[in-house]
Parts: sequence; structure tokens; C-alpha cells
Amino acid sequence: MKIGLLTSGGDCPGLNAVIRGAVLNGVKTYDDEFVGFRDGWRGVVEGDVMDLPRTKVRGLARTGGTILGTSRTNPFDGPHGGPENISIVLERHHIDAIVAIGGEGTLAGAKRLADAGLPVVGVPKTIDNDLQATDYTFGFDTAVSIATDAMDRLRTTGESHHRCMVAEVMGRHVGWIALHSGMSAGAHAVLIPEQRVPMSQVAEWVKEVHDRGRAPLVVVAEGFIPEGFDEVLHEKGTEKDGRPRLGGIGEYVTEEIERLTGIETRNTTLGHIQRGGAPTGFDRVLATRFGMAVVDMIHDKEWGRMVALKGTDVVRVDFSEALNNLKQVPQHRWDEAKVLFGR
Amino acid sequence: MKIGLLTSGGDCPGLNAVIRGAVLNGVKTYDDEFVGFRDGWRGVVEGDVMDLPRTKVRGLARTGGTILGTSRTNPFDGPHGGPENISIVLERHHIDAIVAIGGEGTLAGAKRLADAGLPVVGVPKTIDNDLQATDYTFGFDTAVSIATDAMDRLRTTGESHHRCMVAEVMGRHVGWIALHSGMSAGAHAVLIPEQRVPMSQVAEWVKEVHDRGRAPLVVVAEGFIPEGFDEVLHEKGTEKDGRPRLGGIGEYVTEEIERLTGIETRNTTLGHIQRGGAPTGFDRVLATRFGMAVVDMIHDKEWGRMVALKGTDVVRVDFSEALNNLKQVPQHRWDEAKVLFGR
Amino acid sequence: MKIGLLTSGGDCPGLNAVIRGAVLNGVKTYDDEFVGFRDGWRGVVEGDVMDLPRTKVRGLARTGGTILGTSRTNPFDGPHGGPENISIVLERHHIDAIVAIGGEGTLAGAKRLADAGLPVVGVPKTIDNDLQATDYTFGFDTAVSIATDAMDRLRTTGESHHRCMVAEVMGRHVGWIALHSGMSAGAHAVLIPEQRVPMSQVAEWVKEVHDRGRAPLVVVAEGFIPEGFDEVLHEKGTEKDGRPRLGGIGEYVTEEIERLTGIETRNTTLGHIQRGGAPTGFDRVLATRFGMAVVDMIHDKEWGRMVALKGTDVVRVDFSEALNNLKQVPQHRWDEAKVLFGR
Amino acid sequence: MKIGLLTSGGDCPGLNAVIRGAVLNGVKTYDDEFVGFRDGWRGVVEGDVMDLPRTKVRGLARTGGTILGTSRTNPFDGPHGGPENISIVLERHHIDAIVAIGGEGTLAGAKRLADAGLPVVGVPKTIDNDLQATDYTFGFDTAVSIATDAMDRLRTTGESHHRCMVAEVMGRHVGWIALHSGMSAGAHAVLIPEQRVPMSQVAEWVKEVHDRGRAPLVVVAEGFIPEGFDEVLHEKGTEKDGRPRLGGIGEYVTEEIERLTGIETRNTTLGHIQRGGAPTGFDRVLATRFGMAVVDMIHDKEWGRMVALKGTDVVRVDFSEALNNLKQVPQHRWDEAKVLFGR
Repeated sequence: MKIGLLTSGGDCPGLNAVIRGAVLNGVKTYDDEFVGFRDGWRGVVEGDVMDLPRTKVRGLARTGGTILGTSRTNPFDGPHGGPENISIVLERHHIDAIVAIGGEGTLAGAKRLADAGLPVVGVPKTIDNDLQATDYTFGFDTAVSIATDAMDRLRTTGESHHRCMVAEVMGRHVGWIALHSGMSAGAHAVLIPEQRVPMSQVAEWVKEVHDRGRAPLVVVAEGFIPEGFDEVLHEKGTEKDGRPRLGGIGEYVTEEIERLTGIETRNTTLGHIQRGGAPTGFDRVLATRFGMAVVDMIHDKEWGRMVALKGTDVVRVDFSEALNNLKQVPQHRWDEAKVLFGR
Repeated sequence: MKIGLLTSGGDCPGLNAVIRGAVLNGVKTYDDEFVGFRDGWRGVVEGDVMDLPRTKVRGLARTGGTILGTSRTNPFDGPHGGPENISIVLERHHIDAIVAIGGEGTLAGAKRLADAGLPVVGVPKTIDNDLQATDYTFGFDTAVSIATDAMDRLRTTGESHHRCMVAEVMGRHVGWIALHSGMSAGAHAVLIPEQRVPMSQVAEWVKEVHDRGRAPLVVVAEGFIPEGFDEVLHEKGTEKDGRPRLGGIGEYVTEEIERLTGIETRNTTLGHIQRGGAPTGFDRVLATRFGMAVVDMIHDKEWGRMVALKGTDVVRVDFSEALNNLKQVPQHRWDEAKVLFGR
Repeated sequence: MKIGLLTSGGDCPGLNAVIRGAVLNGVKTYDDEFVGFRDGWRGVVEGDVMDLPRTKVRGLARTGGTILGTSRTNPFDGPHGGPENISIVLERHHIDAIVAIGGEGTLAGAKRLADAGLPVVGVPKTIDNDLQATDYTFGFDTAVSIATDAMDRLRTTGESHHRCMVAEVMGRHVGWIALHSGMSAGAHAVLIPEQRVPMSQVAEWVKEVHDRGRAPLVVVAEGFIPEGFDEVLHEKGTEKDGRPRLGGIGEYVTEEIERLTGIETRNTTLGHIQRGGAPTGFDRVLATRFGMAVVDMIHDKEWGRMVALKGTDVVRVDFSEALNNLKQVPQHRWDEAKVLFGR
Repeated sequence: MKIGLLTSGGDCPGLNAVIRGAVLNGVKTYDDEFVGFRDGWRGVVEGDVMDLPRTKVRGLARTGGTILGTSRTNPFDGPHGGPENISIVLERHHIDAIVAIGGEGTLAGAKRLADAGLPVVGVPKTIDNDLQATDYTFGFDTAVSIATDAMDRLRTTGESHHRCMVAEVMGRHVGWIALHSGMSAGAHAVLIPEQRVPMSQVAEWVKEVHDRGRAPLVVVAEGFIPEGFDEVLHEKGTEKDGRPRLGGIGEYVTEEIERLTGIETRNTTLGHIQRGGAPTGFDRVLATRFGMAVVDMIHDKEWGRMVALKGTDVVRVDFSEALNNLKQVPQHRWDEAKVLFGR
């Protein structure tokens, strides 16, 4: 078979390992041929493809980013979008199957195409780990690892200067990166989108820790909204989606902690370093297995499905399972973590 | 309650995180008091205990090793061993429960004590990830991460010198570390105790890779035994348990590859660096959760049981589930990996 | 002798290694006794001292921060400041010498005290590497190493998304961290306080790189001021010292690149992670040697002097050499680096 | 000009950064053209050259190894060796200058060719840092960094098990890697080729540390020979060059410590991981500057010379300065380090 791969949405450590796993399994097990669509769905709708011989995937398991490029193009938009046009592209290039590697948006597009009869399968990709259908997605472990390293560094500064350190990590809608990196770094408070903790509570945790002679560490997911935040909206302003404006929530939380406790407080927004660079061993293994498994699934012609991790097994699930099912941090994980906060 | 913790067997990144998780949950949720037994079961049978106030567990999530020390003492050996004597120690120190953090041997001892009516619970610890009862044990991810880093380094030397590089990793009875680090580093052959691959097959994989102009990387678990190894026993000698003598299996595989292929080959035995130092984020989170959960289990008085990971949940299982159940690399994981070997 | 150590100013990886080196050399070679002043000069003027037996410095070579704490207190300020008061503190605690570990401000204070007859010596500390009197200061190599790691990560994101990535690093007055981390990461432009490059030139470099199909990486020291920046002052505002306001210079440069080139551009401000955590091997060795050497200097009674690195030798220089002598990036190093910029 | 580059001898982190620095400076400053000789002098004598356009050196600063390959071929050996034959190769390929990047052997060959009138210049490369003519060579800092990381890991195992840990590092003739990584990791003894310490002294250091309740760390350079070693030669055997046989000096030291002190002792031989993988920031900057500077030197037609580091400056020295001048660890650096040993 001739299989076309695409990577779509924000980049994520492990994308190249998926590509390598797919190509090696396809070439060696099934004598498949591979092409890559450049820059996600854009390459599909525009027929912008590159050959992917196995020599191109050498050494890719350990490199960050995606050699295919990525974009946020929607396969249904524009004059060349939609299943009919894409069918024509597939025929013209003799492509028998599309592997869409991406997050919820990408998979939603893939599902619509599969529903329209196109031979599309998927590999879930979300650095935020917010897909219900899979225990973990690759990239998440790398992000937690990078954030943990950064926080280990922030702590020594906090302790030397008797400061409270705030670290803003990724997580627009869910708090998994904040929860895991915060637990891992021994944070004294972790603030996540799922829990609208009031700033007064945060200040209390910080004060308790400071009073015991320690330097508080507070981890904030970028999508956290404090309880009662609406009341300060008029003063501070918010983004369209309700999240705080002006320098990110990390800045806001930092200022509020300093205002409420009088303790010198500093923010660090980790930003893009969380999603770049070499994947961890965990993510390389997961991504490689996903890439290999999706090719097996193609040869079973299970269109409209994607690979997922359940426990230690790579399984197959319908696209629909992955969609409309944001995997939030459940209450029991929050309660577990909260025991570690404050004093 | 007053809870006594012990760490037993080989050290493992995450032991200190378990101790911290247990103490923080116990102190904050239940107002428990903690002591540590020094050097595993030795501290129990000799009544060698140290106080573990929460100030002692500060910052422990990110440190390797165990502040309690460890040993391979058996709680049934010696004049002070056995349930009666241990009962007396517990009474003398007013200790209400023992948490045994260790591998199969430790948990077997813990089971016998629990069967004899002692208030004992367990936390599984094996860097080799060879316990059937749990999806992962802490320390394993760190070992894979360290081995992966090392192999990333070995590859550049191999490629510059057109050599075959061999890396011997831990794994006396199972090949999990070899499998995951090998897959993660893009190894061209992974040799594990579960599969008695003949050296002629290894040589073939190496030659295929070399013929394509690449530098072969071979990962060997320390417990690997090549097929037909018995025949060379007389020449080379073996250890008592049948594993090859003389410089470890890595050396043997290296020499054999060079002999069979004529390709310059070098061995690196990673050794103790795999089990020391700071745990990865994954292991810190897992170990912290195990430590917290085992204290909850104590307050539910579920003696004779231990915590375990199933998917993303920390669950409770009987000691018996963890014993006599070596978790080997199953055939389907081997078949999956093998696709990546050789050419 | 009884020697008092203090660490002052911003924290810096290697401070603890200096403390350890000093204590071990003093105790083992001279049978000295050590105390630490808490939080820099504050501890001196307030007589806030802690004992520093050798057991306190165990394992310190590899830890970030300073166990003595730090502050920006000036030893001449307040009712307890000044040489007379400090003399009284020294006498009361039977302290024979002060080791001031700090940057230009700290060393200026130390010089004034030494000029007033107090037994004061110094160890230079500046993460920015901006002291003329020494080839390198500890902390600098660690900062470069952290920034390099971060940029290696940023590059994969830039390449996957065809973006220009901007990284703002430390360096208020000099561009050493930017220069070295930028050269090390293969940056396509490095912007430093010493060179008022116009934004139009930056945009040109970025466009050249982008036109060749690559993702431009721009490194900006926090103290960089573009040529012609005064003209936009009215619009954008500046800080008191003339540096741009509103989200830091990284944000400004990012917006300007995007405006001038039309290329999607993202900023990452590395912030506090650059100065925390475990020092590199280079910095541990340098800091340990500084700590050992300053104790030898005390026993030679060379007051008013500090240790410094010249080539591979630790030497002694007068405080005056270190002061009023900002070590800027010289023109020839800029010219050298500039060859690597742009196309 | 058309410039030919070669890398020779053992690989070393930073070789690729030299190549990149040379090509970028040559192409951008002088409009030079570059080729690479494959596998060191072999490529020269056999005329095995590859084009090195600037696209080939993209991203090379951060990769380990050498894209040119390396070997230990001597340019004077074989039917095609010697200046006359090499002249013919240069003419045939229109090559105007050779840059030999290598250690003492390579530079000695380069000198002989330059003495015979060939346009040869050099870049010093020795991971052991044993060239008198330069303060540092690239690769050394990376080796120290890797060894330091490894020792940080070994320490936690030593402490958990109350063991003495031995780490064997590179250094056949000089002890720089052992000295710096040992000082950096807080080793309790560092054994180097320059100092024939008796094993009884090592055992004493180890016992002192163990008696204070700590886990001793001993660092051994591979070329260390204990005082009085000749006496055990008959028993243990040695290599041709007098160094101990059977598993390396690390094994020997380990066994001797255990025998003399009764303390459980474990060896780890770091081996090839010390010379592979991504260079540190320090080494990337140094190697890049060396690569750039050697091209400037070519355009000044300073044949028979090589670049070197003095303090923070890249300078030019005659080949003869680099040869017959092994840079050993001087006595004062040994005395300095020895203060940190033992108790």
C-alpha cells in the first residue's frame, strides 16, 4: 500500500518517532510505500507531498518536532478542501490511506473524512494529555520532564532569596502538566483549570510554607481561573475566552500572592520550551508503538479509528471515543494532590 | 497511628519519594507519626529505628537513593528474626504498622509476616519492572531514561568510527529495560533473557545495518543467554546460574559480533549509573502516589496487601499477586520490537 | 582562625561550592573554624550568624543556591551599618576575617570595609560574567548551558511551524550569556547591550534565513536596546534606565520582527531558570577552587583582595581591579559572532 | 580558496562544530569552497572527498561525532602516503589547504606534511585535554560533564548501600578528566597517572570517609598505576604499556579497596559514553571559534600552525608547540585537590 502521513496542530515531542515507527513497520512488514503531506492538512488539500523512504526516518526517534511540518489548516476549508477534492488528491498520488497525527481538532477532521468514506486513520497527539480515549499521549511525559527540571532550578533561587516562586506551565483546558510536574517538583500549590481555587486560599498555602521557613513553589496551568475572578475583570481585563489578560495568569497569580501575603514573589512562564526538543524515553517508546500499530490497523482496513494506550497495551478505538471527551483531572486526583499543598 | 517504613534490596530512584509521600499524607491527613527502620529488615529485627518527622522528608521527591539505607537482610534469619521477635520490636517502639518497600524477596518476607498476623503492607519496588501485579514500578522509567541518554551518546561514536556499539543494561531475568531503552534509542538489535536468539542472528542484523552504511547499536540485558550457549560453556565458563562469565554478557556479545562479522565492535556496560540519582518526573509522581496510597490502605487496615498501578490508577492487590509471577516481556512485545531490528 | 562567609546579591550556581571549598580547605589545612552570615550583609550588620561545621557543607558542590541565604542589603546602610559597627560584630563573635562572595556592588562594599581596616577578602560572583578582573565567574557556564538546552528545544518548534523563535536571556549590561548561548545553539542573530543593532537589520537576518527554508532563531539579552529605539519611546514607554517597557525586550523584538517580516514569531523569556539548580562541572570546579584559594589568601593576610581566574590559574587581584571595569563583549568577539548571523 | 577538512583519531564532542564554524566563516567571509576527506588521513591519501556545501553543516554545532568519519590512518603509511602523493591528490581536487583536526598523532603528521611544503594547518582535538599548547580542547568539558552526572548518580547508590563506589574515567596518560570530574562530584579520592599513590593510602582515605558515616567515592583515570604495582605484576598481569590487566584499573582498585578495608566496593567503568553525544555549550563555543579561526589563519597563509585557546582568546601557535609536550596535571593542582580527599 501507499500510505500518506500528516502531522497537524501544535508540535509535540514524539511526532518524528511516530513517523519512523510507521515507516519502518510498513516497509519491513508489508512492503508499504510512504509519503508525507507537508504542513498537516494543507499538504493534503494542496497535494503537497514528499517521499518518505526509510532513509529519511533514520535516527528520527530521538529528534523533536516533525520533519513533515505542521499547520492548523482545516481540511474542509478553502476551495480545495472537503472529501471530494481530497479523494482526487489521493487518487492522483495513488495514496491508499491517510494517517492523521494530531489533537482533537485534527481527529475531528479525520473523522468527518472517514465518515465520508475516505481511508483515514489516526494517531492521537496532545501534549496536554487531555484525550479521554487514551491513558497517555506522547509529548506529555516530555513536557512534565522539562517542567520538572525547570522547577528544580526555580526552587534553589526561591530558597536563597526567601521568595515565593511561581511557574506557569501549559494547560489551557486541563491541568495534567501542572499536576504531574507540580507533584514531581514538590510544589506547595498547583492551580489548574478544573478547580477554581480562590486567590485567598493560594495566599494561605503560600504563607503557611513561608512561615515554616521554606520557599513556596506555586505551579499554575495557563488556563487556571481563580474563583471570584469575574469581580476583578473590570479592573484587569480578560481574553475573549475568559482567561486573564496582561502577561498571562502566572503574572496575575504572582502579583496577587505578593499583594495578599507581602512575600516577594517571582513568575516564570515556561512557554515553548515545554513542547520542543528530544522526547523522553517514555514518549519515544509510546510514539514508536503508536506509529507501528497504526500501520497494522491500516492493513486491517479499520478506517475511522485511531490507536490509543490502555495500561501498557496499544489498542484501537473509534475516533468518536476521542472526541467530545476532554480528559480533565478528576476530583480524586485533585484531592490526592491537595494533601501535599501548603503547610 | 505510628507507622514504620523500611526500604530493602537494591536501591532505586523513587524510594525517597515514597517515603515523603507516605509521611506527608500520614501527618497531614491522619495525624500519624512515622519512624524509619535503618537498612531494611535489619532495622526491624534489630529495632534500629530513626524518627521521621516531616522536616526530614523535605525536598526528598527529587533525590535518588533512600535516606533509610537498605540491605538484603532477611527478616526470618538470625536470632532476632521471625514474627515473634518482630512483634516485640513493634510493641517496644509502639509501632502500629510496617510499610515494606521492596522487590519480590522483600514482599515475600512481608507476606510471611502478614500471614503470621503482623500489620504489614507493601510498596512494590523493582527497577527491572518485573512484577506482574503492577503496570509499572518506579525506578524503571529513570533507568530507561539514563540508558537512552547513554545510547544516544554511543551512537555518535559508532557512526564516526563505523563501529558496532554494544550496550549492556540491567535485567537479570527480564528484558524490559533493554526493550524500552533499545526501542527508544533506535537499536538495531535488543537481546533479552526471554528470547534465546543465536549469535549468528545477531551477527546478521549487525551486518545488514553495517552494509547500509550505518553504525549498528546492540542492546543486551545482563541476563541474556544466546541460543546454543551451552556449547561454548566449556570454553568460556559460566556463572552458577548459567549466565556467561568473563566480563559480562556484553563483553561476550561484543567479541562474538566482531568474530562473526569482522566489524570493529565496542562494549559499554552501563552498570550502577542506571539505578542512582534523581528520578524522572514519571517516577517521582508514581512513587509519591504509592507512598500516599499505602498510608490510606493502612488506615483501612488492609494488611497483607500492597499498592500497584493499573492504567493510571493506584490500586490495592494482595501480596500473593505480586509473588511467583515474574512479568516477562511477552511474545507480542518482542515481535513488535523485532520489526525494528536489522536492515 | 575563625572565618565568616557571606553570599550577597542574586543567587548563582556555584555559591554552595565556594562555601564547601572554603570550609574544607580551612578545616583540613589550617584547622580554621567557620561561620556563615545569614542573607549577605544583613547577617553581618545584624550579627546574624550560623555555625558552619564541615558536616554542613557535605554534598554542597552539586547543589544550586546558597545555604547562607542572600539579600541586597548594603553594609553601610542603616543604624548598624558601617565599619565601626561591623568591627564590633566581628569582635563579639571572635571572627578574624570576612569572605564576601558577590558581584560588583558586594565587592565595592567589601573594598570600602577593607579600606577602613577590616579583614575582608572577596570571591567574585556574577552570572553575567561582566567582571574585567577574571576570565570567568562561576554560574556563567551553567546559565549558558541552561539557555543552550532551552534553545535546542525552541529550534524544533520553530522548524515544525516555520516560525521565527526569539529567546530572551539574562544580561542587563553585557551580552556574554546571549553571545555564548547563541553561538552554541546556532542562533541566526544575537542582540546584546553592547551593540545597538537596528530592528531593520534584525529583520533582514531573519528574512534571509527564512527564505532559505529555515526557522530563524534570535537570541536577545535583556539589556539590548535597538538602534533608533528612542524614537519609539513615546509610543511604547521605557523603564527608568532606558530599557524597553511592556513585557521585556524579547516581546518587543518579537513583535517588531513579525511586523517587519510578516513571519510568525514567538518569544520565550527564559527568566529565573537560568540562575538556579545544579551547577555544571565547569562551575563546580571553578567555585571550589575559588573557595579554597580565598582561605589561603586569608592566611596570607592579603586583605582587600579577591580571587580571580586567569587562563587556568586562580590568582589574587585587588578589589579595585574588579570595580569600575565592566567586562563588555569586545568588538572582535561581536565581529566573530556576526559572521554566523543571517543567511 | 578550496579547503579540505579532515577529522582524525578518537571521536570527540565538538568536531562537527569545528566543521560548521570553518565552513560558515569560509563561505560567508571569503567565498571559500569546502570538501571533507572521509575518515581522516585515509580520505586524504585515497582522495576520498565529499563536498561540504553550507547546507551540509546546518545544525551541526549541537551534534556529537563527526560527519566526516574518522580513522587512525597515518598519512605516511602505505603506497599512497607521503607528501608527494598527497600533493597529487590536492592538485587533482584543486584543494588549496588542508585543515587537520586531531590529537597529537594527527598534528605530528600534519607537521611533517607542512614541513614538506604542503599547505596544512591544524585544530587541536584531545578529549583528555593533554596538549600543552592550549588551555582547553573541546570535548574535555563534555567528558567532565558526563562523568560528573554519572558520579552524582553513583553517590546515591553508595549512600543507600553504605558502599564505596569507584568510577573509572578516561585518561590514559593524564588525569584531567578524573581531576575535574572528581572535584566536581565531591570525590574522596582521585587517582591519576601523574601520581603513583599506593593502594594503602587510597584505603586509608576510603576508611576515613566510611568511618564518618559517609559513602566514599573514588575516581580513577584509566592510566593510573598504584605505587608498588610492579610487585603484583606477576600475580595479576599487565598490558604491554605497564597498565594493569584484567578488567581495567577500576576493577583492580575496587578489589584492592575491598580487600584492604573490608568495605563493600563497586566499580563502574564509564567508557565510551564520555566521548559521544551532544557537546556542552562551552565546547560548542570553543569548537566553533576554533573552526572559524583556522580559516582566517589559512587566508593569512600561516601554514604549519594551529589554533589554540589562551585565557579567553583564540590564538595561533606552531605545531611544534603542541607536540612533545604532554600537559600533565601539575603538582600544585594535585596538592589543591588532595586537600579534599579522605576525612
